[in-house]
Amino acid sequence: MKGTFITVEGPDGAGKTTQLQLMAEGLKRQGYQVVMTREPGGTRIGNEIRSLILNPDFTEMDEMTEILLYAASRAQHVNELIRPSLTAGTVVLCDRFVDASIAYQGYGLGYSIEQIRNVNQQATGGLTPDRTYLFDLTVMDSKRRMIERGALDRIEQRDDAFRERVYHGFLSLAASEPERIRLIDANQSIEAVQSLLLEDVLAYLKKRERLS
Amino acid sequence: MKGTFITVEGPDGAGKTTQLQLMAEGLKRQGYQVVMTREPGGTRIGNEIRSLILNPDFTEMDEMTEILLYAASRAQHVNELIRPSLTAGTVVLCDRFVDASIAYQGYGLGYSIEQIRNVNQQATGGLTPDRTYLFDLTVMDSKRRMIERGALDRIEQRDDAFRERVYHGFLSLAASEPERIRLIDANQSIEAVQSLLLEDVLAYLKKRERLS
Ligand SMILES: Nc1ncnc2c1ncn2[C@@H]1O[C@H](COP(=O)(O)OP(=O)(O)OP(=O)(O)O)[C@@H](O)[C@H]1O
Ligand SMILES: Nc1ncnc2c1ncn2[C@@H]1O[C@H](COP(=O)(O)OP(=O)(O)OP(=O)(O)O)[C@@H](O)[C@H]1O
Ligand SMILES: [Mg+2]
Ligand SMILES: [Mg+2]
Repeated sequence: MKGTFITVEGPDGAGKTTQLQLMAEGLKRQGYQVVMTREPGGTRIGNEIRSLILNPDFTEMDEMTEILLYAASRAQHVNELIRPSLTAGTVVLCDRFVDASIAYQGYGLGYSIEQIRNVNQQATGGLTPDRTYLFDLTVMDSKRRMIERGALDRIEQRDDAFRERVYHGFLSLAASEPERIRLIDANQSIEAVQSLLLEDVLAYLKKRERLS
Repeated sequence: MKGTFITVEGPDGAGKTTQLQLMAEGLKRQGYQVVMTREPGGTRIGNEIRSLILNPDFTEMDEMTEILLYAASRAQHVNELIRPSLTAGTVVLCDRFVDASIAYQGYGLGYSIEQIRNVNQQATGGLTPDRTYLFDLTVMDSKRRMIERGALDRIEQRDDAFRERVYHGFLSLAASEPERIRLIDANQSIEAVQSLLLEDVLAYLKKRERLS
Protein backbone atom coordinates (compact mmCIF):
# COMPACT_ATOMS: atom_id res chain seq x y z
CA MET A 1 0.00 0.00 0.00
CA LYS A 2 1.36 3.38 -1.03
CA GLY A 3 -0.34 5.57 1.59
CA THR A 4 0.47 6.08 5.25
CA PHE A 5 -1.87 5.18 8.08
CA ILE A 6 -1.55 7.43 11.15
CA THR A 7 -3.72 7.20 14.26
CA VAL A 8 -4.05 9.23 17.47
CA GLU A 9 -4.98 7.68 20.79
CA GLY A 10 -5.27 8.72 24.41
CA PRO A 11 -7.74 9.73 27.12
CA ASP A 12 -10.98 11.61 26.43
CA GLY A 13 -10.38 15.32 26.12
CA ALA A 14 -6.62 14.98 25.55
CA GLY A 15 -6.84 17.10 22.39
CA LYS A 16 -6.76 14.37 19.75
CA THR A 17 -9.45 15.80 17.49
CA THR A 18 -8.14 19.35 17.82
CA GLN A 19 -4.63 18.25 16.85
CA LEU A 20 -5.70 15.92 14.05
CA GLN A 21 -7.60 18.75 12.37
CA LEU A 22 -4.54 21.02 12.56
CA MET A 23 -2.32 18.19 11.32
CA ALA A 24 -4.59 17.60 8.33
CA GLU A 25 -4.33 21.28 7.39
CA GLY A 26 -0.56 21.28 7.90
CA LEU A 27 -0.06 18.21 5.70
CA LYS A 28 -2.32 19.57 2.96
CA ARG A 29 -0.25 22.79 2.93
CA GLN A 30 2.79 20.59 2.28
CA GLY A 31 1.01 19.06 -0.72
CA TYR A 32 -0.07 15.74 0.82
CA GLN A 33 -3.38 14.15 -0.08
CA VAL A 34 -5.10 13.67 3.30
CA VAL A 35 -8.19 11.86 4.59
CA MET A 36 -9.21 12.61 8.18
CA THR A 37 -11.58 10.17 9.86
CA ARG A 38 -12.57 8.81 13.25
CA GLU A 39 -13.78 5.80 15.25
CA PRO A 40 -16.30 4.67 16.01
CA GLY A 41 -17.78 6.09 12.80
CA GLY A 42 -16.00 7.18 9.65
CA THR A 43 -18.70 5.80 7.34
CA ARG A 44 -22.48 6.07 7.08
CA ILE A 45 -22.95 2.59 8.60
CA GLY A 46 -20.19 3.26 11.14
CA ASN A 47 -21.96 6.41 12.28
CA GLU A 48 -25.19 4.48 12.82
CA ILE A 49 -23.24 2.00 14.96
CA ARG A 50 -21.51 4.87 16.76
CA SER A 51 -24.78 6.42 17.88
CA LEU A 52 -25.92 3.03 19.16
CA ILE A 53 -22.72 2.52 21.19
CA LEU A 54 -22.65 6.01 22.66
CA ASN A 55 -26.40 6.34 23.43
CA PRO A 56 -26.51 7.01 27.22
CA ASP A 57 -29.95 5.37 27.31
CA PHE A 58 -28.60 1.84 26.65
CA THR A 59 -27.39 1.18 30.19
CA GLU A 60 -28.08 -2.55 29.76
CA MET A 61 -25.47 -2.92 26.99
CA ASP A 62 -23.38 -6.05 27.51
CA GLU A 63 -19.59 -5.64 27.35
CA MET A 64 -19.17 -8.26 24.64
CA THR A 65 -21.86 -6.49 22.61
CA GLU A 66 -19.89 -3.25 22.93
CA ILE A 67 -16.67 -4.95 21.77
CA LEU A 68 -18.40 -6.50 18.77
CA LEU A 69 -20.13 -3.24 17.80
CA TYR A 70 -16.81 -1.39 17.82
CA ALA A 71 -15.35 -4.19 15.69
CA ALA A 72 -18.30 -4.05 13.25
CA SER A 73 -17.89 -0.30 12.81
CA ARG A 74 -14.16 -0.84 12.28
CA ALA A 75 -14.63 -3.55 9.64
CA GLN A 76 -16.83 -1.20 7.63
CA HIS A 77 -14.37 1.67 8.12
CA VAL A 78 -11.32 -0.35 7.00
CA ASN A 79 -12.97 -1.92 3.98
CA GLU A 80 -14.99 1.04 2.74
CA LEU A 81 -12.64 3.95 3.47
CA ILE A 82 -9.21 3.28 4.99
CA ARG A 83 -7.84 0.53 2.73
CA PRO A 84 -9.04 2.14 -0.53
CA SER A 85 -7.54 5.50 0.58
CA LEU A 86 -4.20 3.88 1.40
CA THR A 87 -4.19 2.09 -1.93
CA ALA A 88 -4.71 5.49 -3.60
CA GLY A 89 -1.59 6.81 -1.82
CA THR A 90 -3.38 9.04 0.70
CA VAL A 91 -2.22 9.90 4.23
CA VAL A 92 -5.07 8.57 6.42
CA LEU A 93 -5.38 10.35 9.78
CA CYS A 94 -7.65 8.38 12.08
CA ASP A 95 -8.97 9.47 15.48
CA ARG A 96 -8.74 6.23 17.57
CA PHE A 97 -8.38 2.65 16.26
CA VAL A 98 -7.73 -0.87 17.66
CA ASP A 99 -5.53 0.44 20.51
CA ALA A 100 -8.56 2.25 21.91
CA SER A 101 -10.56 -1.01 22.09
CA ILE A 102 -7.70 -2.68 23.93
CA ALA A 103 -7.33 0.23 26.36
CA TYR A 104 -11.07 0.84 27.02
CA GLN A 105 -12.66 -2.61 26.79
CA GLY A 106 -9.56 -4.59 27.71
CA TYR A 107 -7.69 -2.66 30.41
CA GLY A 108 -10.71 -0.47 31.33
CA LEU A 109 -13.52 -3.03 31.56
CA GLY A 110 -11.23 -5.97 32.29
CA TYR A 111 -12.24 -7.95 29.25
CA SER A 112 -9.79 -10.49 27.76
CA ILE A 113 -7.20 -8.58 25.72
CA GLU A 114 -6.46 -11.65 23.65
CA GLN A 115 -10.13 -11.97 22.64
CA ILE A 116 -10.30 -8.28 21.74
CA ARG A 117 -7.18 -8.61 19.57
CA ASN A 118 -8.66 -11.69 17.98
CA VAL A 119 -12.01 -10.06 17.07
CA ASN A 120 -10.21 -6.95 15.80
CA GLN A 121 -7.76 -8.98 13.74
CA GLN A 122 -10.81 -10.32 11.90
CA ALA A 123 -12.44 -6.89 11.63
CA THR A 124 -9.36 -5.19 10.16
CA GLY A 125 -7.93 -8.10 8.21
CA GLY A 126 -4.73 -7.38 10.14
CA LEU A 127 -4.33 -3.71 9.11
CA THR A 128 -2.12 -1.89 11.67
CA PRO A 129 -1.30 1.85 11.78
CA ASP A 130 2.14 2.83 10.47
CA ARG A 131 2.46 5.36 13.27
CA THR A 132 0.36 6.13 16.35
CA TYR A 133 0.55 9.23 18.52
CA LEU A 134 -0.48 8.57 22.09
CA PHE A 135 -1.64 11.75 23.83
CA ASP A 136 -0.36 11.60 27.36
CA LEU A 137 -2.62 13.44 29.84
CA THR A 138 -3.45 12.50 33.44
CA VAL A 139 -6.97 11.49 34.43
CA MET A 140 -7.41 14.73 36.38
CA ASP A 141 -6.41 16.96 33.48
CA SER A 142 -8.47 14.99 30.98
CA LYS A 143 -11.55 15.19 33.19
CA ARG A 144 -11.22 18.93 33.67
CA ARG A 145 -11.17 19.49 29.90
CA MET A 146 -14.20 17.26 29.34
CA ILE A 147 -16.30 19.02 31.95
CA GLU A 148 -15.44 22.37 30.39
CA ARG A 149 -16.65 20.97 27.06
CA GLY A 150 -20.13 19.93 28.29
CA ALA A 151 -22.46 16.86 28.47
CA LEU A 152 -20.86 13.39 28.77
CA ASP A 153 -21.76 10.33 26.62
CA ARG A 154 -22.24 6.74 27.92
CA ILE A 155 -18.53 5.85 27.83
CA GLU A 156 -17.44 9.18 29.29
CA GLN A 157 -19.76 8.69 32.27
CA ARG A 158 -17.65 5.79 33.62
CA ASP A 159 -15.75 6.51 36.83
CA ASP A 160 -12.21 7.59 37.64
CA ALA A 161 -10.95 4.09 38.48
CA PHE A 162 -12.03 3.10 34.96
CA ARG A 163 -10.16 6.08 33.51
CA GLU A 164 -7.01 5.18 35.45
CA ARG A 165 -7.07 1.63 34.08
CA VAL A 166 -7.50 2.96 30.54
CA TYR A 167 -4.61 5.38 30.98
CA HIS A 168 -2.39 2.60 32.33
CA GLY A 169 -3.45 0.44 29.37
CA PHE A 170 -2.40 3.06 26.85
CA LEU A 171 1.00 3.40 28.51
CA SER A 172 1.49 -0.40 28.49
CA LEU A 173 0.67 -0.54 24.79
CA ALA A 174 3.16 2.25 24.07
CA ALA A 175 5.85 0.47 26.07
CA SER A 176 5.30 -2.76 24.15
CA GLU A 177 5.41 -1.14 20.69
CA PRO A 178 7.79 1.83 20.97
CA GLU A 179 8.57 1.86 17.23
CA ARG A 180 4.94 2.40 16.22
CA ILE A 181 3.48 4.27 19.22
CA ARG A 182 4.97 7.66 20.08
CA LEU A 183 4.06 9.47 23.30
CA ILE A 184 3.07 13.14 23.06
CA ASP A 185 2.94 15.28 26.20
CA ALA A 186 -0.60 16.67 25.86
CA ASN A 187 -0.31 19.01 28.83
CA GLN A 188 1.04 21.87 26.73
CA SER A 189 -0.58 24.61 24.67
CA ILE A 190 -2.39 23.58 21.49
CA GLU A 191 0.33 25.34 19.44
CA ALA A 192 3.20 23.60 21.27
CA VAL A 193 1.65 20.15 20.80
CA GLN A 194 0.95 20.83 17.12
CA SER A 195 4.45 21.98 16.38
CA LEU A 196 5.95 18.79 17.90
CA LEU A 197 3.46 16.59 16.06
CA LEU A 198 3.84 18.18 12.66
CA GLU A 199 7.61 18.06 12.85
CA ASP A 200 7.55 14.36 13.70
CA VAL A 201 4.98 13.36 11.14
CA LEU A 202 6.70 15.26 8.31
CA ALA A 203 10.04 13.65 9.17
CA TYR A 204 8.34 10.25 9.23
CA LEU A 205 6.65 10.77 5.85
CA LYS A 206 9.93 11.94 4.29
CA LYS A 207 11.69 8.84 5.64
CA ARG A 208 9.02 6.57 4.13
CA GLU A 209 9.36 8.35 0.78
CA ARG A 210 13.13 7.80 0.78
CA LEU A 211 12.69 4.12 1.63
CA SER A 212 10.06 3.39 -1.02
CA MET B 1 -28.54 -24.76 33.61
CA LYS B 2 -32.01 -26.11 34.33
CA GLY B 3 -33.88 -24.85 31.25
CA THR B 4 -33.88 -26.16 27.70
CA PHE B 5 -32.65 -24.18 24.72
CA ILE B 6 -34.45 -24.97 21.46
CA THR B 7 -33.85 -23.24 18.14
CA VAL B 8 -35.45 -23.39 14.69
CA GLU B 9 -33.48 -22.84 11.51
CA GLY B 10 -34.03 -23.09 7.77
CA PRO B 11 -34.71 -21.05 4.64
CA ASP B 12 -36.71 -17.81 4.63
CA GLY B 13 -40.40 -18.50 4.53
CA ALA B 14 -40.10 -22.13 5.64
CA GLY B 15 -42.62 -21.57 8.43
CA LYS B 16 -40.27 -21.22 11.40
CA THR B 17 -42.04 -18.29 13.06
CA THR B 18 -45.47 -19.75 12.46
CA GLN B 19 -44.48 -23.07 14.02
CA LEU B 20 -42.57 -21.56 16.91
CA GLN B 21 -45.63 -19.57 17.95
CA LEU B 22 -47.79 -22.70 17.87
CA MET B 23 -45.10 -24.63 19.77
CA ALA B 24 -44.98 -21.96 22.48
CA GLU B 25 -48.74 -22.24 22.95
CA GLY B 26 -48.60 -26.04 22.94
CA LEU B 27 -45.85 -26.15 25.58
CA LYS B 28 -47.64 -23.60 27.79
CA ARG B 29 -50.78 -25.75 27.67
CA GLN B 30 -48.62 -28.59 28.99
CA GLY B 31 -47.54 -26.40 31.92
CA TYR B 32 -44.07 -25.40 30.71
CA GLN B 33 -42.66 -21.95 31.36
CA VAL B 34 -41.77 -20.67 27.87
CA VAL B 35 -39.87 -17.71 26.44
CA MET B 36 -40.14 -17.20 22.68
CA THR B 37 -37.54 -14.97 21.04
CA ARG B 38 -35.75 -14.37 17.73
CA GLU B 39 -32.53 -13.35 16.01
CA PRO B 40 -31.34 -10.90 15.07
CA GLY B 41 -33.21 -9.07 17.84
CA GLY B 42 -34.68 -10.46 21.02
CA THR B 43 -33.68 -7.44 23.10
CA ARG B 44 -34.04 -3.66 22.82
CA ILE B 45 -30.41 -3.27 21.72
CA GLY B 46 -30.68 -6.36 19.51
CA ASN B 47 -33.66 -4.88 17.73
CA GLU B 48 -31.74 -1.67 17.02
CA ILE B 49 -28.97 -3.80 15.52
CA ARG B 50 -31.55 -5.86 13.61
CA SER B 51 -32.97 -2.82 11.86
CA LEU B 52 -29.46 -1.74 10.90
CA ILE B 53 -28.62 -5.16 9.39
CA LEU B 54 -31.88 -5.54 7.50
CA ASN B 55 -32.18 -1.95 6.19
CA PRO B 56 -32.33 -2.37 2.38
CA ASP B 57 -30.76 1.10 2.02
CA PHE B 58 -27.32 -0.03 3.32
CA THR B 59 -26.16 -1.68 0.09
CA GLU B 60 -22.52 -0.80 0.91
CA MET B 61 -22.49 -2.99 4.04
CA ASP B 62 -19.29 -5.03 4.23
CA GLU B 63 -19.63 -8.78 4.85
CA MET B 64 -17.40 -8.74 7.92
CA THR B 65 -19.49 -5.87 9.31
CA GLU B 66 -22.61 -7.98 8.85
CA ILE B 67 -21.03 -10.97 10.63
CA LEU B 68 -19.94 -8.79 13.56
CA LEU B 69 -23.33 -7.06 13.85
CA TYR B 70 -25.10 -10.43 14.04
CA ALA B 71 -22.59 -11.49 16.69
CA ALA B 72 -23.12 -8.25 18.66
CA SER B 73 -26.88 -8.74 18.66
CA ARG B 74 -26.34 -12.34 19.74
CA ALA B 75 -24.02 -11.43 22.64
CA GLN B 76 -26.68 -9.07 23.99
CA HIS B 77 -29.39 -11.68 23.49
CA VAL B 78 -27.51 -14.47 25.25
CA ASN B 79 -26.39 -12.38 28.20
CA GLU B 80 -29.53 -10.32 28.76
CA LEU B 81 -32.26 -12.86 27.97
CA ILE B 82 -31.33 -16.44 27.03
CA ARG B 83 -28.87 -17.38 29.79
CA PRO B 84 -30.94 -15.83 32.62
CA SER B 85 -34.08 -17.59 31.30
CA LEU B 86 -32.30 -20.95 31.15
CA THR B 87 -30.98 -20.45 34.66
CA ALA B 88 -34.58 -19.86 35.78
CA GLY B 89 -35.61 -23.22 34.29
CA THR B 90 -37.49 -21.87 31.27
CA VAL B 91 -37.86 -23.49 27.86
CA VAL B 92 -36.31 -20.92 25.49
CA LEU B 93 -37.60 -21.11 21.92
CA CYS B 94 -35.39 -19.09 19.62
CA ASP B 95 -36.04 -18.28 15.96
CA ARG B 96 -32.53 -18.65 14.36
CA PHE B 97 -29.16 -18.70 16.15
CA VAL B 98 -25.47 -19.41 15.32
CA ASP B 99 -26.34 -22.02 12.66
CA ALA B 100 -28.00 -19.26 10.63
CA SER B 101 -24.79 -17.18 10.61
CA ILE B 102 -22.84 -20.20 9.41
CA ALA B 103 -25.38 -21.00 6.70
CA TYR B 104 -25.96 -17.41 5.46
CA GLN B 105 -22.61 -15.67 5.93
CA GLY B 106 -20.45 -18.80 5.69
CA TYR B 107 -21.98 -21.07 3.05
CA GLY B 108 -24.07 -18.28 1.45
CA LEU B 109 -21.55 -15.43 1.18
CA GLY B 110 -18.50 -17.70 1.16
CA TYR B 111 -16.98 -16.21 4.29
CA SER B 112 -14.61 -18.34 6.41
CA ILE B 113 -16.74 -20.71 8.51
CA GLU B 114 -13.94 -21.05 11.04
CA GLN B 115 -13.84 -17.28 11.59
CA ILE B 116 -17.62 -17.13 11.96
CA ARG B 117 -17.54 -19.92 14.53
CA ASN B 118 -14.74 -18.13 16.32
CA VAL B 119 -16.54 -14.76 16.55
CA ASN B 120 -19.75 -16.49 17.62
CA GLN B 121 -17.97 -18.56 20.24
CA GLN B 122 -16.96 -15.26 21.82
CA ALA B 123 -20.42 -13.72 21.41
CA THR B 124 -22.25 -16.65 23.06
CA GLY B 125 -19.58 -17.71 25.53
CA GLY B 126 -19.99 -21.16 23.98
CA LEU B 127 -23.75 -21.56 24.56
CA THR B 128 -25.18 -24.15 22.10
CA PRO B 129 -28.84 -25.12 21.61
CA ASP B 130 -29.93 -28.37 23.21
CA ARG B 131 -32.05 -29.15 20.17
CA THR B 132 -32.43 -27.49 16.77
CA TYR B 133 -35.22 -28.08 14.26
CA LEU B 134 -34.10 -27.51 10.70
CA PHE B 135 -37.02 -26.72 8.42
CA ASP B 136 -36.40 -28.45 5.14
CA LEU B 137 -37.91 -26.61 2.17
CA THR B 138 -36.51 -26.23 -1.36
CA VAL B 139 -35.44 -22.85 -2.69
CA MET B 140 -38.37 -22.78 -5.09
CA ASP B 141 -40.96 -23.46 -2.40
CA SER B 142 -39.40 -21.00 0.04
CA LYS B 143 -39.35 -18.25 -2.60
CA ARG B 144 -42.96 -18.80 -3.52
CA ARG B 145 -44.04 -18.37 0.11
CA MET B 146 -41.97 -15.21 0.55
CA ILE B 147 -43.39 -13.55 -2.55
CA GLU B 148 -46.90 -14.33 -1.34
CA ARG B 149 -45.97 -12.64 1.95
CA GLY B 150 -44.85 -9.30 0.40
CA ALA B 151 -41.84 -6.91 0.31
CA LEU B 152 -38.34 -8.41 0.72
CA ASP B 153 -35.61 -7.11 3.13
CA ARG B 154 -31.88 -6.68 2.25
CA ILE B 155 -30.96 -10.30 2.97
CA GLU B 156 -34.06 -11.70 1.25
CA GLN B 157 -33.19 -9.78 -1.94
CA ARG B 158 -30.11 -11.94 -2.59
CA ASP B 159 -30.33 -14.28 -5.59
CA ASP B 160 -31.24 -17.94 -6.04
CA ALA B 161 -27.62 -19.17 -6.21
CA PHE B 162 -27.14 -17.61 -2.76
CA ARG B 163 -30.27 -19.37 -1.49
CA GLU B 164 -29.05 -22.71 -2.86
CA ARG B 165 -25.71 -22.33 -1.05
CA VAL B 166 -27.52 -21.47 2.20
CA TYR B 167 -29.82 -24.49 1.85
CA HIS B 168 -26.84 -26.76 1.17
CA GLY B 169 -25.11 -25.24 4.23
CA PHE B 170 -28.02 -26.05 6.51
CA LEU B 171 -28.09 -29.66 5.29
CA SER B 172 -24.31 -29.99 5.87
CA LEU B 173 -24.70 -28.70 9.41
CA ALA B 174 -27.51 -31.16 10.10
CA ALA B 175 -25.42 -34.02 8.72
CA SER B 176 -22.49 -33.11 10.97
CA GLU B 177 -24.58 -32.82 14.15
CA PRO B 178 -27.44 -35.32 13.81
CA GLU B 179 -27.93 -35.60 17.58
CA ARG B 180 -28.68 -31.89 18.01
CA ILE B 181 -30.15 -30.92 14.61
CA ARG B 182 -33.37 -32.62 13.52
CA LEU B 183 -34.75 -32.22 10.01
CA ILE B 184 -38.41 -31.33 9.61
CA ASP B 185 -40.13 -31.68 6.22
CA ALA B 186 -41.63 -28.20 5.92
CA ASN B 187 -43.52 -28.95 2.72
CA GLN B 188 -46.60 -30.10 4.60
CA SER B 189 -49.63 -28.33 6.03
CA ILE B 190 -49.08 -26.08 9.06
CA GLU B 191 -51.06 -28.57 11.18
CA ALA B 192 -49.04 -31.60 10.01
CA VAL B 193 -45.71 -29.87 10.72
CA GLN B 194 -46.89 -28.72 14.15
CA SER B 195 -48.06 -32.13 15.19
CA LEU B 196 -44.66 -33.70 14.32
CA LEU B 197 -42.79 -30.91 16.09
CA LEU B 198 -44.81 -30.90 19.27
CA GLU B 199 -44.61 -34.66 19.61
CA ASP B 200 -40.82 -34.60 19.24
CA VAL B 201 -40.23 -31.66 21.56
CA LEU B 202 -42.46 -33.07 24.31
CA ALA B 203 -40.68 -36.44 24.12
CA TYR B 204 -37.34 -34.64 24.28
CA LEU B 205 -38.34 -32.54 27.32
CA LYS B 206 -39.63 -35.64 29.13
CA LYS B 207 -36.35 -37.45 28.42
CA ARG B 208 -34.35 -34.53 29.84
CA GLU B 209 -36.54 -34.50 32.95
CA ARG B 210 -35.95 -38.22 33.51
CA LEU B 211 -32.18 -37.77 33.08
CA SER B 212 -31.85 -34.78 35.42
N1 LIG C 1 -3.49 21.64 24.57
C1 LIG C 1 -4.69 21.99 25.08
N2 LIG C 1 -4.75 22.77 26.16
C2 LIG C 1 -5.96 23.09 26.68
N3 LIG C 1 -7.14 22.71 26.20
C3 LIG C 1 -7.12 21.93 25.10
C4 LIG C 1 -5.91 21.53 24.51
N4 LIG C 1 -6.19 20.72 23.46
C5 LIG C 1 -7.54 20.65 23.41
N5 LIG C 1 -8.09 21.38 24.39
C6 LIG C 1 -9.52 21.50 24.69
O1 LIG C 1 -9.90 20.31 25.37
C7 LIG C 1 -11.17 19.85 24.92
C8 LIG C 1 -11.00 18.46 24.36
O2 LIG C 1 -10.25 18.52 23.15
P1 LIG C 1 -10.54 17.50 21.98
O3 LIG C 1 -11.98 17.40 21.69
O4 LIG C 1 -9.60 17.82 20.86
O5 LIG C 1 -10.05 16.18 22.75
P2 LIG C 1 -10.21 14.69 22.28
O6 LIG C 1 -8.95 14.01 22.72
O7 LIG C 1 -10.53 14.62 20.84
O8 LIG C 1 -11.43 14.21 23.16
P3 LIG C 1 -12.41 12.95 22.90
O9 LIG C 1 -11.61 11.74 23.21
O10 LIG C 1 -13.51 13.14 23.87
O11 LIG C 1 -12.83 13.02 21.45
C9 LIG C 1 -11.63 20.87 23.89
O12 LIG C 1 -12.51 21.76 24.51
C10 LIG C 1 -10.35 21.53 23.41
O13 LIG C 1 -10.55 22.84 22.94
N1 LIG D 1 -46.76 -25.32 6.20
C1 LIG D 1 -47.07 -24.22 5.48
N2 LIG D 1 -47.69 -24.31 4.31
C2 LIG D 1 -47.98 -23.21 3.59
N3 LIG D 1 -47.70 -21.96 3.96
C3 LIG D 1 -47.05 -21.81 5.13
C4 LIG D 1 -46.71 -22.93 5.94
N4 LIG D 1 -46.08 -22.46 7.05
C5 LIG D 1 -46.02 -21.12 6.93
N5 LIG D 1 -46.63 -20.74 5.76
C6 LIG D 1 -46.74 -19.36 5.26
O1 LIG D 1 -45.46 -19.03 4.68
C7 LIG D 1 -45.10 -17.71 5.02
C8 LIG D 1 -43.79 -17.74 5.79
O2 LIG D 1 -44.00 -18.31 7.09
P1 LIG D 1 -43.12 -17.86 8.32
O3 LIG D 1 -43.10 -16.38 8.42
O4 LIG D 1 -43.58 -18.62 9.49
O5 LIG D 1 -41.73 -18.39 7.81
P2 LIG D 1 -40.30 -18.14 8.43
O6 LIG D 1 -39.56 -19.40 8.24
O7 LIG D 1 -40.45 -17.61 9.82
O8 LIG D 1 -39.74 -17.01 7.48
P3 LIG D 1 -38.56 -15.96 7.78
O9 LIG D 1 -37.28 -16.75 7.71
O10 LIG D 1 -38.63 -15.00 6.62
O11 LIG D 1 -38.83 -15.36 9.12
C9 LIG D 1 -46.24 -17.14 5.84
O12 LIG D 1 -47.06 -16.40 4.97
C10 LIG D 1 -46.93 -18.37 6.40
O13 LIG D 1 -48.31 -18.17 6.64
MG1 LIG E 1 -12.15 13.72 19.88
MG1 LIG F 1 -39.71 -15.86 10.65
